[in-house]
Amino acid sequence: MDTIERLTSLFERFPGIGPRQAGRFVQFLLRSSPSMRRELIEAVQRLGSAVHQCPECMRFHAGEEKICSICVSDERGKEFLMIVASDADLQALERSGTYHGLYFVLGGTISLANEKSANLRIPQLLALISSRKELEEVVLAFPANPEGDATAARLKNEMSDFVNRSSLRITTLGRGLSTGSELEYADPETIKNALESRK
Amino acid sequence: MDTIERLTSLFERFPGIGPRQAGRFVQFLLRSSPSMRRELIEAVQRLGSAVHQCPECMRFHAGEEKICSICVSDERGKEFLMIVASDADLQALERSGTYHGLYFVLGGTISLANEKSANLRIPQLLALISSRKELEEVVLAFPANPEGDATAARLKNEMSDFVNRSSLRITTLGRGLSTGSELEYADPETIKNALESRK
Amino acid sequence: MDTIERLTSLFERFPGIGPRQAGRFVQFLLRSSPSMRRELIEAVQRLGSAVHQCPECMRFHAGEEKICSICVSDERGKEFLMIVASDADLQALERSGTYHGLYFVLGGTISLANEKSANLRIPQLLALISSRKELEEVVLAFPANPEGDATAARLKNEMSDFVNRSSLRITTLGRGLSTGSELEYADPETIKNALESRK
Amino acid sequence: MDTIERLTSLFERFPGIGPRQAGRFVQFLLRSSPSMRRELIEAVQRLGSAVHQCPECMRFHAGEEKICSICVSDERGKEFLMIVASDADLQALERSGTYHGLYFVLGGTISLANEKSANLRIPQLLALISSRKELEEVVLAFPANPEGDATAARLKNEMSDFVNRSSLRITTLGRGLSTGSELEYADPETIKNALESRK
Repeated sequence: MDTIERLTSLFERFPGIGPRQAGRFVQFLLRSSPSMRRELIEAVQRLGSAVHQCPECMRFHAGEEKICSICVSDERGKEFLMIVASDADLQALERSGTYHGLYFVLGGTISLANEKSANLRIPQLLALISSRKELEEVVLAFPANPEGDATAARLKNEMSDFVNRSSLRITTLGRGLSTGSELEYADPETIKNALESRK
Repeated sequence: MDTIERLTSLFERFPGIGPRQAGRFVQFLLRSSPSMRRELIEAVQRLGSAVHQCPECMRFHAGEEKICSICVSDERGKEFLMIVASDADLQALERSGTYHGLYFVLGGTISLANEKSANLRIPQLLALISSRKELEEVVLAFPANPEGDATAARLKNEMSDFVNRSSLRITTLGRGLSTGSELEYADPETIKNALESRK
Repeated sequence: MDTIERLTSLFERFPGIGPRQAGRFVQFLLRSSPSMRRELIEAVQRLGSAVHQCPECMRFHAGEEKICSICVSDERGKEFLMIVASDADLQALERSGTYHGLYFVLGGTISLANEKSANLRIPQLLALISSRKELEEVVLAFPANPEGDATAARLKNEMSDFVNRSSLRITTLGRGLSTGSELEYADPETIKNALESRK
Repeated sequence: MDTIERLTSLFERFPGIGPRQAGRFVQFLLRSSPSMRRELIEAVQRLGSAVHQCPECMRFHAGEEKICSICVSDERGKEFLMIVASDADLQALERSGTYHGLYFVLGGTISLANEKSANLRIPQLLALISSRKELEEVVLAFPANPEGDATAARLKNEMSDFVNRSSLRITTLGRGLSTGSELEYADPETIKNALESRK
């Protein structure tokens, strides 16, 4: 396998990239300036050295310290912990500018195909909750699909078994019509939720 | 214009139908049996004679009586009135099986392009609400888009001006994550609503 | 089943129409004027009386005579006969304004799922070709897909068996890049044809 | 801008990649093994050192020699030269396995927006053709769109002005129905070409 083929096959491993677009990436880099290629190489190198995984919320970040800027901030409410599946979900929440507590990145949702939860950071989460005495509410913020629901159900079970604290509220994000929803095309479950949470 | 062209141009007026599909409809009818065409003709004829618009909720129905089966039913809660934009929205609500009150079909939403509300049955709605003393809650069930929001805002205004009854609750369907929503792709407004209505 | 449901289920039989759009058609007709509904009824009625199938080319048309305007025209070259699958294909050819011979509508293509050709007018076609002594070329104009290719192969076989005329040319439409094709996305077969028919 | 943001913005420059997918690439690399990242870095580094642009056909390749394996091969017919817009088009031709002559990569097509052809290797092409006495046919293999047609027209003009050789044939790829085309949806230009190139 020559250099072009090897780089193509590496890009094919990128999420959502097939052989055609992988080939186009290689052509793009071939036509790019040497300085663009050098920048790319340096940025990938620095991922290994300058990027840390925050030991509190488990998200990846490029701050100077190991602990991330959200977890270290005085302005975030320490009584709230929101559990999200991925860094991308955490970023969406931050973009919305509506949540001011802390986070924990679980690392995925339960796969319904094989019930696997091996890669999810459930033990770390339970330990974290046990140690945070100031915690008042855990918000389960998973996608509104069967995998997200199964993950929320599992976490509730685990928390009721291992976290013995009656004052801790466990909530899930509200369901209803999302922006752009039309009633005519809404599924019965969404209509039911929208009706129950009318206000 | 010959018969084929005339029928094609009639089908082109159907919602969502372009010249190509209109032509395909005509070909389909040409190849259909005479009895299929006769059935179609009879069904369209009966629309004018056997279908009524319910004088209460304004939806079209094919019941024996002018008043429809929902409005006449003893099992529907007369203390609830849900305002929907269209018959199709009403049907979606009925399919969900979660609402057991009465309806009123407004006949559309306010167009933001021209602010037109001429075809909406606002005066009839206000008269209906005034006359129904048993009414406790009006549920505004419009699509989660700017037109739906503008329509809800308008109705709230009109009701506060013309309906002088402090005990009447006016609610709107809840917003949040709808079935299938992923946080990563959710808009800030939906995330904000989902967070506020967590439970 | 009431009138609304019966008309909905009739529209569901229309090509490409599901229950939702069928329901929308009924709502559209309910809101239409009585004169629009009457026009529709009359046009469907006239399909049965005013539209004939041309006994020569087998297409449907609304001319005064049984034989259609193309088959009767003095300006069409009687030495060419183009075989098409459907009336819609014939119309596409006419729109292109590039063909000036006669047509024959076969009534479909061979289904590869079940090898069925029962509804195709192959015997009529063979009889027609046998009787037209002035014919010099038969153009097989089928879609560029496996069904179209199988139909062309079948017709060639049948013609070589039953039509004993060495002077009759049988041709198929040329293959190559169609408008908008990009080489990068073209399949090998199309590239091969484009290369062979370069000029 | 921190490392994550810088790498995201570099991936955003990749063809067809928006901010969201760029972010996903970074997350993917963060979760990848250090050895996967090292492989990627090495492959990008080798693009600059181990990949050459063939001085004959101008395509990028990773062969040992500067001249590429196609241009150097004894099995390719030196009497044919096919002009393609890009490396990707050349690869599609090679995959089809139907062409056995030589290539020249022009580097794009004429932009109809600004008539720019500055980056196209037209002078090099003319010089190459002048020097190759064994050449019998130049095949213009551009996409079947207005840009491709304009590029072919320009090259024909330039060649007739600068290449004074009456024996040199200039051809373009054949047009017609491409695989999967249905007559009903074919544009008039494609139908016309398919009819003219029938066989």
